Amino acid sequence: MATSEALQDRLRRPLGFTLRVRVVQPADLSAKALPAVAGAGAFVSDTRCCQVASDGLLYELTLFVTGDEQLAAARAALEAAGLQVLETIDLAMETHRGGACEMRGRTPIRSNNDLRIVYTPGVARVCKKIQADPELAREYTGIHNKVAIVTNGTAILGLGDIGCVPGMPVMEGKSAIFWEFVGISAEPILVDTKDPDEFIFVVEKIAPTFGAIQIEDVKAPECFPITRELDRRLAIPVMHDDQHGTATIVLAGLYSALKKTGRKIADVRCAISGAGASGTAISELLQRAGIGDVILCDSKGIVCRGRKEGMNPEKDALAARTNRDNRSGTLADAMKGCDLFIGCSQPNIVSQDMVRSMAKDPIVFALANPVSEISRDDATEAGAAIYADGRLMNNALAYPGIFRGALDVRARDITLEMMMAAARKLADIVPAGELMPEMMDPATHRAVAEAVRQAAPKK
Amino acid sequence: MATSEALQDRLRRPLGFTLRVRVVQPADLSAKALPAVAGAGAFVSDTRCCQVASDGLLYELTLFVTGDEQLAAARAALEAAGLQVLETIDLAMETHRGGACEMRGRTPIRSNNDLRIVYTPGVARVCKKIQADPELAREYTGIHNKVAIVTNGTAILGLGDIGCVPGMPVMEGKSAIFWEFVGISAEPILVDTKDPDEFIFVVEKIAPTFGAIQIEDVKAPECFPITRELDRRLAIPVMHDDQHGTATIVLAGLYSALKKTGRKIADVRCAISGAGASGTAISELLQRAGIGDVILCDSKGIVCRGRKEGMNPEKDALAARTNRDNRSGTLADAMKGCDLFIGCSQPNIVSQDMVRSMAKDPIVFALANPVSEISRDDATEAGAAIYADGRLMNNALAYPGIFRGALDVRARDITLEMMMAAARKLADIVPAGELMPEMMDPATHRAVAEAVRQAAPKK
Repeated sequence: MATSEALQDRLRRPLGFTLRVRVVQPADLSAKALPAVAGAGAFVSDTRCCQVASDGLLYELTLFVTGDEQLAAARAALEAAGLQVLETIDLAMETHRGGACEMRGRTPIRSNNDLRIVYTPGVARVCKKIQADPELAREYTGIHNKVAIVTNGTAILGLGDIGCVPGMPVMEGKSAIFWEFVGISAEPILVDTKDPDEFIFVVEKIAPTFGAIQIEDVKAPECFPITRELDRRLAIPVMHDDQHGTATIVLAGLYSALKKTGRKIADVRCAISGAGASGTAISELLQRAGIGDVILCDSKGIVCRGRKEGMNPEKDALAARTNRDNRSGTLADAMKGCDLFIGCSQPNIVSQDMVRSMAKDPIVFALANPVSEISRDDATEAGAAIYADGRLMNNALAYPGIFRGALDVRARDITLEMMMAAARKLADIVPAGELMPEMMDPATHRAVAEAVRQAAPKK
Repeated sequence: MATSEALQDRLRRPLGFTLRVRVVQPADLSAKALPAVAGAGAFVSDTRCCQVASDGLLYELTLFVTGDEQLAAARAALEAAGLQVLETIDLAMETHRGGACEMRGRTPIRSNNDLRIVYTPGVARVCKKIQADPELAREYTGIHNKVAIVTNGTAILGLGDIGCVPGMPVMEGKSAIFWEFVGISAEPILVDTKDPDEFIFVVEKIAPTFGAIQIEDVKAPECFPITRELDRRLAIPVMHDDQHGTATIVLAGLYSALKKTGRKIADVRCAISGAGASGTAISELLQRAGIGDVILCDSKGIVCRGRKEGMNPEKDALAARTNRDNRSGTLADAMKGCDLFIGCSQPNIVSQDMVRSMAKDPIVFALANPVSEISRDDATEAGAAIYADGRLMNNALAYPGIFRGALDVRARDITLEMMMAAARKLADIVPAGELMPEMMDPATHRAVAEAVRQAAPKK
């Protein structure tokens, strides 16, 4: 594990808060406030002096904590140091207040002339030209820069089936990322149905509004027919992020890890925990990329030919095309001798012994959110040569550039080749000592988009 | 007719263009260029010197014309005056290039910390809080500031059934107006079906995404069951702009005209040409406001009880509740003795004689777009005391404030009372000498919103 990754890992805390703290002396910040917060285990990201008065100073301390207990500990430590905590602001709640995205006009309307151009009567001219030549819709509407982020709320993050409205902040967050990273106008669409056919029908009917469809947080196995059928019916790209975005990121991480450990992909044997949306799509993409073998496990154990319990048509198909030697048994059986473990399942289900049973210098991608299948410290101690969790292997490294590239070349589909190209490019641009490239660098998303444009089928 | 209205009427030209014109001397602008354009009948709105070189100056002249012929005449006149026209830019096309609206992030994402707050893991906290208390969706998502602008493209402006994608610029223009006038995030949704039941189904399923629904440019009679059924099924406001927006504006214009002509609404007899979406909704709102009588005409003549030809259930219902004396005959028969004519039908179908047959000091609202049932000059010459066309009586005076007000008070419906309140307020704030208030003044939309909030049913 590279030092910077270990550092990043320690700095990663899921919850951000800003505390408004009154101190008497400027020196109290470094002498009292910061040590108090650090002593509680929290990570201080920003400090800001927002008020200077005769009786003291008001500082805002922004910190990241593992949970409410650590936050309470930080507050208590500040009070114990004689500092007054006036207010605690929950940054996630504040950031999502009023929604993380909004539809804005792209042209000022400051005069009746402006209005006459953007709306009637001038707009009729634009409509008529598009009617005469539908291709002009690409140039004179926003359709071809728009992605629908569509969910029915059945698998929101790791929270499960919480409903589509409670899932809205995730969709809005994704929209904000699309806008910030690649300038795509991404519109959350909540579809109030758990019936796959209804979902397909609704998305198909509104699809003319958009240049591409991102299916988001729809649970397995319904997500498979939904994605396949929409992809078949629509002439625009359809991608299920939990399947294809995750698979792309995992392959990128694998390419990067192979480079570090001097392996060839054809020699890699892989065990995957979780045969849902991510596990299924990962196995498909890894096989397309030429991996030696893949064994999938679900809550009933290894998915194999002849198994009866907890199977469905999707898993029968998986059993037919994975698990070369048709092993059966538990996840522990599956991991024995494997070079690579990929977890998209449950917290803490992988033991150190299971890692020790893997091949030499094993690669462990423990992607369950928010708590991994095995922690970095445990995996590393048990001999993992490479470790990554779901925060390091973030889909937001992949989907912005994939959609940007696909929209730019008017792709009809996002093919496995386009995903592989995105994965290879991500691995190519990893900075020395890291496993994944820097998400905040716009060059990362530009590079992915360019790779996807190149890999798209030529017309 | 007030002088300023006559002036505005002359200045209104549907099409805007910017010509890039090279002149030798600065004085050529006033001595040659402007007179040439004016001589061709065009209206020059802006001039801008964009380049000064040793051999002359480059000016951009923005002008509004009645059509391509007048544009050609203006260009020819400039060339005849010895000026070189380098380029002609179609402002409607340029303004709609790339679309008139876009979904943007509302929060900067400049660091991994920002990302962790707007997206995973921080966003999970927001989702869980909304799951526990659904009311929080109002505060921590954008849902309650979002309006869906939904069309199936069957009645785009006056262009008819041109399809939903060619209609997109209208929806995007409306979105830009919503944003500019009242800060609402309005999202165009194209629904690819002409079947009312399918349309209703699709909109109902995506409705949780939005705080209100604006049905737009859906043709009659399908628009009636669509609007009614969605309004019945959904707990958020549903408004069909071509019905309710237009009706509100017409009632506002009527209130304003009654003030100018010293009439009472109960004494007004009205003939409406057009029994589609607008005509039907106008008659309903005018009757709710206490008008003396309304007679509707369609292409087959007066809608009356006992008529067989070209009737449908909507028109049967209209016949039952309008036309007190059950007159039959033509539009000319309907207009005889009426105080008010409202046209939402076809260009040039009203003659001067028909206006002369009306009561003394008649009010003529000739709203057909882009060419009215009768021109201002013809109507005024025939004795119309008040005249307005569809450009003066623009729905954009009504719907932004109506939706702003309805969203603000979480109204479940947009009631006739809310529309009447909006109409009364619009009439109240008309500047002296005008018929309608100033659309570009933000105070107009604030006043409408406040009136609508006040008129909404108390919970």
